[in-house]
Order: sequence, then C-alpha cells, then structure tokens
Amino acid sequence: MGAAKSSCQGFLHYAFDYETAKTLVVPSIAAGVVFRFTQLLILLYLVGYVCIVQKAYQDTDSVVSTVTTKVKGYAVIKGSANTSSPQFRDVADYVIPPQGDKSFFVVTNMIVTTNQKVSHCPEIPKPSTLCNQDSQCTTGLEDLRGNGVRTGRCVNYSDTVQTCQVLSWCPLEEDTGPNKEALIDAAENFTLLIKNSVTYPKFNFHRRNIMPHINSSYLKTCVFNSSTDPHCPIFRLKQIVSDAGEEFQVMAVEGGVLGILIDWTCDLDLWASQCLPKYSFRRLDDNNNSRVLAPGYNFRFAKYYKSPEGTESRTLIKAYGIRFEVIVFGTAGKFSMLPTLVNLGSTLTFLSLVPTVSDWFLLTFTKKRGFYSKHKTTHLRDEDEEDEDENKQSMSMGTSYGTQ
Amino acid sequence: MGAAKSSCQGFLHYAFDYETAKTLVVPSIAAGVVFRFTQLLILLYLVGYVCIVQKAYQDTDSVVSTVTTKVKGYAVIKGSANTSSPQFRDVADYVIPPQGDKSFFVVTNMIVTTNQKVSHCPEIPKPSTLCNQDSQCTTGLEDLRGNGVRTGRCVNYSDTVQTCQVLSWCPLEEDTGPNKEALIDAAENFTLLIKNSVTYPKFNFHRRNIMPHINSSYLKTCVFNSSTDPHCPIFRLKQIVSDAGEEFQVMAVEGGVLGILIDWTCDLDLWASQCLPKYSFRRLDDNNNSRVLAPGYNFRFAKYYKSPEGTESRTLIKAYGIRFEVIVFGTAGKFSMLPTLVNLGSTLTFLSLVPTVSDWFLLTFTKKRGFYSKHKTTHLRDEDEEDEDENKQSMSMGTSYGTQ
Amino acid sequence: MGAAKSSCQGFLHYAFDYETAKTLVVPSIAAGVVFRFTQLLILLYLVGYVCIVQKAYQDTDSVVSTVTTKVKGYAVIKGSANTSSPQFRDVADYVIPPQGDKSFFVVTNMIVTTNQKVSHCPEIPKPSTLCNQDSQCTTGLEDLRGNGVRTGRCVNYSDTVQTCQVLSWCPLEEDTGPNKEALIDAAENFTLLIKNSVTYPKFNFHRRNIMPHINSSYLKTCVFNSSTDPHCPIFRLKQIVSDAGEEFQVMAVEGGVLGILIDWTCDLDLWASQCLPKYSFRRLDDNNNSRVLAPGYNFRFAKYYKSPEGTESRTLIKAYGIRFEVIVFGTAGKFSMLPTLVNLGSTLTFLSLVPTVSDWFLLTFTKKRGFYSKHKTTHLRDEDEEDEDENKQSMSMGTSYGTQ
Repeated sequence: MGAAKSSCQGFLHYAFDYETAKTLVVPSIAAGVVFRFTQLLILLYLVGYVCIVQKAYQDTDSVVSTVTTKVKGYAVIKGSANTSSPQFRDVADYVIPPQGDKSFFVVTNMIVTTNQKVSHCPEIPKPSTLCNQDSQCTTGLEDLRGNGVRTGRCVNYSDTVQTCQVLSWCPLEEDTGPNKEALIDAAENFTLLIKNSVTYPKFNFHRRNIMPHINSSYLKTCVFNSSTDPHCPIFRLKQIVSDAGEEFQVMAVEGGVLGILIDWTCDLDLWASQCLPKYSFRRLDDNNNSRVLAPGYNFRFAKYYKSPEGTESRTLIKAYGIRFEVIVFGTAGKFSMLPTLVNLGSTLTFLSLVPTVSDWFLLTFTKKRGFYSKHKTTHLRDEDEEDEDENKQSMSMGTSYGTQ
Repeated sequence: MGAAKSSCQGFLHYAFDYETAKTLVVPSIAAGVVFRFTQLLILLYLVGYVCIVQKAYQDTDSVVSTVTTKVKGYAVIKGSANTSSPQFRDVADYVIPPQGDKSFFVVTNMIVTTNQKVSHCPEIPKPSTLCNQDSQCTTGLEDLRGNGVRTGRCVNYSDTVQTCQVLSWCPLEEDTGPNKEALIDAAENFTLLIKNSVTYPKFNFHRRNIMPHINSSYLKTCVFNSSTDPHCPIFRLKQIVSDAGEEFQVMAVEGGVLGILIDWTCDLDLWASQCLPKYSFRRLDDNNNSRVLAPGYNFRFAKYYKSPEGTESRTLIKAYGIRFEVIVFGTAGKFSMLPTLVNLGSTLTFLSLVPTVSDWFLLTFTKKRGFYSKHKTTHLRDEDEEDEDENKQSMSMGTSYGTQ
Repeated sequence: MGAAKSSCQGFLHYAFDYETAKTLVVPSIAAGVVFRFTQLLILLYLVGYVCIVQKAYQDTDSVVSTVTTKVKGYAVIKGSANTSSPQFRDVADYVIPPQGDKSFFVVTNMIVTTNQKVSHCPEIPKPSTLCNQDSQCTTGLEDLRGNGVRTGRCVNYSDTVQTCQVLSWCPLEEDTGPNKEALIDAAENFTLLIKNSVTYPKFNFHRRNIMPHINSSYLKTCVFNSSTDPHCPIFRLKQIVSDAGEEFQVMAVEGGVLGILIDWTCDLDLWASQCLPKYSFRRLDDNNNSRVLAPGYNFRFAKYYKSPEGTESRTLIKAYGIRFEVIVFGTAGKFSMLPTLVNLGSTLTFLSLVPTVSDWFLLTFTKKRGFYSKHKTTHLRDEDEEDEDENKQSMSMGTSYGTQ
C-alpha cells in the first residue's frame, strides 16, 4: 500500500511538479519606472489604437444592397415651345432604361434622324468616302469607320460633292456633334427618389435609407441638402451635379457619368441606431475632354415604325445625357470573439517583450549595473565542471577520510 | 596559433554563449494542476474555437458571379377573356428588360393611356389646377407636381369643372391608383429559370448552380422546393413570393421588390464537392404601405407609333409589378499559411501568459507560499552592495593580512 | 521628515522595484547556435513570407467600379445582301440594352415572326396539341408548355394535321431552333470600347483604364491584344471570344455568355503608378450543350406597331447572341499600422518560443546536459522545508544560547 501510494505520488510529482523561473527583485526605481512605463505605453496602444480607433475587436461584413430609383419631371425641348409643333418630354421619354434601376440615364441633348429606311444613299463626305467615278468605290467594302456597305456607285451627295453610295439606314445621321446648348435643359429641375435597402448577411442586419423615424409628411416635400437635409431621399439633379463639383448645363451638352455614392459604414455594437447612410457625389468619367477618347456619354437607340404597306422605318436618336450610378458600399463591424483574441494576443506579445527592454536598460544605464548583473546572471564556465568534478572527488575523498 | 584559436573561441563564446533562465521545480501538485489545466484550456480554445468553429487557418475570398434568367408563361388579362378584344400577354410583353438580367421586372398590374399626342389639354383637377378664368393660369408655369407647361388658358375639364390648360402628352393619364385586383393574376404560375455561374478568383474555383451530377431529365420537369427540390434551378413565381412570407396576389396589386438570395458560402478544403448554392427569398422593399413614400414598385414606359401622316403618338403604360433581384453572395475559405500562423501565434501568446497565472496562484493560494517565494525570488537590497563592498574590502584586507 | 522620506521611498520601492529573471550563461556553442539559428529562421519567415510575399503589413480594400461600353460596327444579314430587300443592322438594332451598360447583348442570330396579332390560331403540332375533334381541346386550358389559352375548337394546322385552337399572338412562332449559321456573322468584326473607372474608397484612390500617359492618337487606332497592346481599351469581338478559348462563329449560332474580367489588384505603397488593369476573358455559361438545360443564350422581345385603324401588331424576335459581362474585381493593399502590428506580434510570439526549443536541445542533446541542468534547475523538495525549519530552530536556539 505504502509503495503504491508512493509510486502514485511519484507519478503525480513527475507530471505536475511546477517549474517556475527564479527571479531577482532589484531595488532600482529607474528600471522599475522604465518597466511600468513601457507596459503602460503598450496598454495605451491596445486600448487607444487597437480598441478605440481600429475597433479590432470587431468582425466585419460587406454590404449587400438593392436600389430602386424614380425620376420625376417634364420638359419642353428648347426652342420648340413657340413653334407649331412643340416637343414635350416626360419620364417615359427621357429615362433609359425606364424600370428604375440603380443605374439610369437621363437624356439632356440629342441628334434625331427621322424616317430612316434601309436603302441606298451617299456616304457622309470625308476623305475616305469622296469619289469622282464608280471605280473608286469598291463594291461590298465594309469600312468599319463608314456607315454602310458600298454598292460600288459614286453618287451626288450635294451639288458639288460626290461620295460613294452605301447600303444603310438612309438618310444617314449627320453627326456634327451635340448642340452647343442642351436641348432638355429643364432636366436640372427633375427630382430623383432613391430607395435603398441594405443587408449585412453575417449579422442579419437590415435597414433602409428611408428611416422609420422620418416623418412621412416631411418626405413628401423635402429635397436633399448635404447640410440641412442629409437624410431626405429625394434629390434635385442640379444639386447632385453641383455637389460633384460640376455644372449641370455644361455637363448636359456632351453627357457624363455621375456617381451617387451611399456609404453604409456602421458600428453595430453600440450605435446600430446610428447606422445611417452618408451620401456623396462624384463625376466618374474623365471630364478633361481635350485628350479623351469619346468624351462625355452618349449612345444611339431607335424607335421602329411600320407603314401601312409594311415597310419598316425608324427614328434614330443619338442621346447625350447624364448616366447616374447609385453605388452602395460600406462595412459593418460587430464584436466577435476571434478578432478580439487575435488582436489581444498580438498586443500581449509586445508586453512579453517589455522585460527584455527593461533588462537591457538595467544592465546598460543604471549606476549599479555591475552589481545587478552579477546577481542576475551566473556565468558558467567549462572549467567549473572540472573544478566541481575535483571538488566532488576531494569531497568524496574527504567523506571517505571522514568515515575512516 | 594558440592565441588566434583562443581569440576565435572567445568570439564564438561571445556570440553564441547561451543565456537561459534559471528555474525552480516546486513540488506543488496544486500549482502544477493549475498550470496544466490553464494550458489545456487554451489548447482546447485553439483547436475547438479557432480551428473548428472559426476556421481561422483559412484565407477567404468573395464570390464573383454571373446570373442569367429566363421567365416562361403567358396570361390573358383579367376580365378581357370573354370580350370581343381579349388581351393576351407573353414573355416579350411583360418581362422588362427582356434580356434575362439578374434583375428583372414582371408586370402584374397596369394603367394604360392610349393614343397620347403632344398637344393641349386640361390638367387633372386638383386644388392647384382648378380655375375660373385665364388669369389664374400663369403662362409657362412649370409646376413639377403638374403634368405639363401651362398655356395660360382656363378650359373645361368636364361639364362642371374647369382647369388650367397644359402642353403635354394628351390625354393625360388618369392615375387613380392601381386596379384593386392584379390584371395579370396568372403571373403567379410563371416559371423562372436561373443560371448562375460563380468564381472565387483567389482560389481559381468555378462552379455553376446547375450541377453536372444533376440528371437533365430531372431538370426538365422539376420545380424548386426548399425542402424536397433544393437544387432545382426552376422556380414558380408564387412559390418565391410565399417563401418570402408574402402573398402573391396582394403583392401583385401595388408591386414590390423581391430578393432571390443565393448563398455560396463554401469550405474549399475538404468539402469542395459540397459547395452548393443555398437559395432564400426576402422582400426587399418596405411593405408597411401605410407610412411609406411611393409604396410598392411601379414605373412608366411608352410604346411609340407613327400615323401614316407622320404624327407621333404613344401608349403610356404605368406598370405595377414585382421586381426580382437575384443577389449572389458568399465567402469561400481555403487553408493558407499566413492566417494559420497569425492565429496560431496569437493563441500561443496566451500560452506564454500561463506561467504568470500559475506563479500568482503558487505565491497566493498554496500553503507553503512563503517557502516557495523565498526560493523563487531573491530580494536584493541596496545595502547588500555596501555589505559586499565591505566584504570585499575585508577580504582583500584579509588577503593582505594573509600575505603579510 | 526622515520617516516621511523613508515611507515614500518604501512606497516607491514597493511600486517600482524591478523583478527580473535570474539567468545562467551556458558556454555551449551548440545550444547558442541552435538558439540563434532558430531566431534567424523566424526572422527570415517574418521578412520573407509575412512582409514580402503576403504583404501582411498592408490593410486591404475592395474595388468599387463603374463601366461604360460602346460597340461599333454594322452588318448586312447573311443571305439578304443580293435580294430585293436587303436587311441592314447597326448598333441601334443589335445592342440590347442600348445604353452602354457593363452587361450588354449583341444579337448574332434570330428567329423573326412578323405581324403577330392577338387572335385565334392553331397550336404548333406536338403530341399534346394534336386533335381530331373539339372535345379533345379543353376550353380555357392554360398549358404552360403551350403557346396560349385553348378556345375549345380543333382546327386545321395544315392540310393533314389538326391541332387545338388557342388565343395568342398569332401566327405563332415556329421555333425550330436557330439557323445553323449565324445571320449576323459580321458581328465578329464589331469593336468594343470599354471605359472603366475604379475607386478604392478606403485609400481615396481613383483610376481609369484609359491611362493619362497613353497617347490619344494611339487610342484612336489601337486594338487590344493581350501581348502587344495590353492597355488598349478597344476590343474586337472575335478576339475576345477567341481569347476565351471559343470560336466566334460557333458561339454565335446558339449564343452564350462571355466574361471580360478586369483585375485591378494593386499594391498602393510603392507601385501606385504600376496599378494597371489586367484583362482576361472567360466563357461563363456551360458550353457542354449536350447535357445542358436551355443551352446558349437567347431571349424574346417585340417591336410594337399600330395600324391606321388602331389594331396593335408586333414583330416577335427570338434573339440569339453573345452577352458580354464586364466583371471588375481586385483588392488594393496599403501600409497600415494595425495589420503590421498584429502580424508582427504574431510572429514575435514564435520568437518567444525559441528559448523553450533551445532549452530542450540543451538539456537533451548536449554532452554536459547533466551539469547544465544542475545549475539551471533547482529541485525543491518538501523535506527541504522541514530541514530548513529545523535549521531555523537550531539557529534560533543557537542564538538564544548566544544571548545566554
């Protein structure tokens, strides 16, 4: 029994004897201050920078969002108001595509070519299309910078100019650039309603840009203003463009791309109720027109008609305008165990370096460094072992002497 | 030679002598148990939480995806079936835009205003448009909440009511709200095929939602059901809406936005073959109609016609319906060296704190703490140095005595 | 005064006495080499892998981007060139949607059904629609795989075949699959201009794919080629498809989805000027047509016409073609304090494990391990305390003896 107990205890001692470092308490207030001060610095870094500034105790998620838009307003095309056939445009005419996507285009200027039919007509005059005789117009040539397939004939474009005839939608569009003043200049007064719903899937957090606490009668009359009405979801197009640092009437001539950025960066720990959208505006295309390929923003589309006899014709519209892009971005943070422990662990590592620094200070800069060093560090020399061996021998000899 | 060898050895000793901490083995099983138990706890946290729960050994990447959709089905407009001019709608009529984007709109209800021409007509009666005489209608006034530019005349809207005349697309749309029952109620039986291809660029991992192992004859007849057919890519619109917790016929009246969320969260280490899409459905707009600005979802678009004489007319359609948004999200994880080492390192830091805890336990709670403390810690006092100095002096004196 | 000064010093000593580990310098060059070598390995890992390879000192951000596209080119429909009514298509006809989105569709093949009117006509013959008498055609049956609502009559489809009559857009589309050769085969020569503007919001970094340093006369004539012109933003459709490993004329028949991937992965510390887009191309839909549901890519849309009498007709177009998707992705990294310190901290943890490894080496593999162990580790035994107590007693006794 006693042996069993003893061997059990022996095992316990073998497995659980506790090995701890021997330490020396040095009465150096200087070293102590350095030690505590370095520790304090690291703790301040941990609390101040890691926790408060970087919020490194949080897990993060990226926003998933949906946007619907609705433009309102109408316009009479410039110069047509007092003519016999005034031209009127409303939302169904100038918003493309019509379905209220997060990216939509508002026509502000255009070149309209009516009653085009697939037939033969002379090319627009330019060096490569001018001709004097049919042999200069290769039949079937498809010049990608031209407007159609050459028929091989050279015909009168005007009384003085002859160009190659092409098969195309005729008459050809005469693209002499956009009107110098935007035709739909009233577009600056159009209003835009943005509905934005966001989700942070990891945190199961949903929110809309039209907050429940906002008064619905306020919503019916408000207009966004970054300083006075920062949460009104209704924007005036002119205001958007000017907040982006551009002038509407200038941008309306050649068109452009305008970003409406909605920032949903949120801290979901304490301030979930303060998770509000921040709107900002920025021109996204290059407005340095002098050196840019295809400056501005425009595209061509057509409306198709059929005559009672069944021949198809179209109205080709080269539309210049502003494309608005609602771009939603943001990152939400919420307390999570793993990043907290990872960042805590990394910071604590620096704490474990403090003794190294303090020791270096103690053994380098204090007055009594020699004295401290002697007690802190034992220098073992190889000769010691030999001495010891001799000692042992002498001791054992001595012992043997003693027992003699 | 000997000197060179000796100075070389001196350098080696200087550079490579190994400084190690002096330790004390304490036969306190209690402290040993605390030490091992705390180590065990941290290892369990490392293995259990960091590795298994959080998979912190993985690098992550966000999904890049493409979606194409295809709706099928046709409908006779409610109430028109038995009339002389039944109205029939198929995919080309009610899906906007038609090209099978990840966001598309299905018309379920509408207000149609046919044969609009740009001309003069009386405004829709409301307080701001009623008039008795021309002077009440300012010429050229562009009221953004009105429908057109005022001509300055006050004309008969009906036998009893006079309103200001405007230049607009006439006749004006009489927007008295959507029909109380959806006109295209058969839309609930339409089917939707979703093709989704995803990529995790960092891991060069590609996958489609139509898995190669799925039988193609099954695909031709299946309909998605979250419990019985969770991987069928064909959805019935009614099922989608009801899975989102809404009723189709109710939502169809005023319209709304419905998210089809595809979650591709995957662990690419072991279970790459188990990387399957998970579908879920959620209404994205605010369905609390009573307090919402512009509830539901609708937009206006027009079809343009030209008479043989060349005058343009249009049919304006205010379309109510459900906008479906396929939202693909997900994060894939795969083993990577860096996060593994970072997380391992951070955890090991906590291991290095275990001795501090155990020492505190040893010197505070064990019975023999005084005895352990005495052997573990040497208190150096400033007086010691003086004593020592004296000793040295006395010794040197003693020595000098001895040599006397 | 002296007492106050002394108690103050006592407090300072209590608060700031510095506790440091006692160490032993072992003259074992082997252990020293192991120690230094392990430290070196970890420093190499820190510098080489963590800093240089993984750039773990950087904070990262995901790209936010805008894309506009513009297709140029025209085509005569195959086989129509020498007929009396040649068919010509330009951008306004074959790009859907027209507004230059990042996702657009180029029609390459089609089935056109002209002059459809809502009326009654016989179903397309297939087993479920064939009939001999009216009773086989249930009135009002809406077979979702059929083309319209049955009227209950069985009528002649041709001289020999009778099918159920339906209410639908008549005549029905005869969908016998796409033409075996693409009708708009010239589409391979169309060019595509991509304008892409990217932002890394966290770093306030903006850039465009058309770099300021690129010559504008070069831009007007260049065509993208992955080896010779990797920064030209103008692409030939054929080149895009062939770079994706497909053949244009094959893909044009049934259609497909083609991804144009723009990778903006950037290091913004040193090489911000080297932050350039990398283009790559990949087919996104499944091209293994034999087993795929609805292979290729197609959709139906209609053009609407009105006769002078006011009856509406439409031309239904089933368009096959290539949908191009510009997919922008990328992550930018820039030096940041937090990830640097986290990763540094995690690596330093490994440094703090080096003594453990070296000690194990020292006490296991060196020749003089016993000697080193004896000096490094003091084994305290419980009996020591009793001995000590006895000593104390005897000492105190001795002392008492001495005072006697």
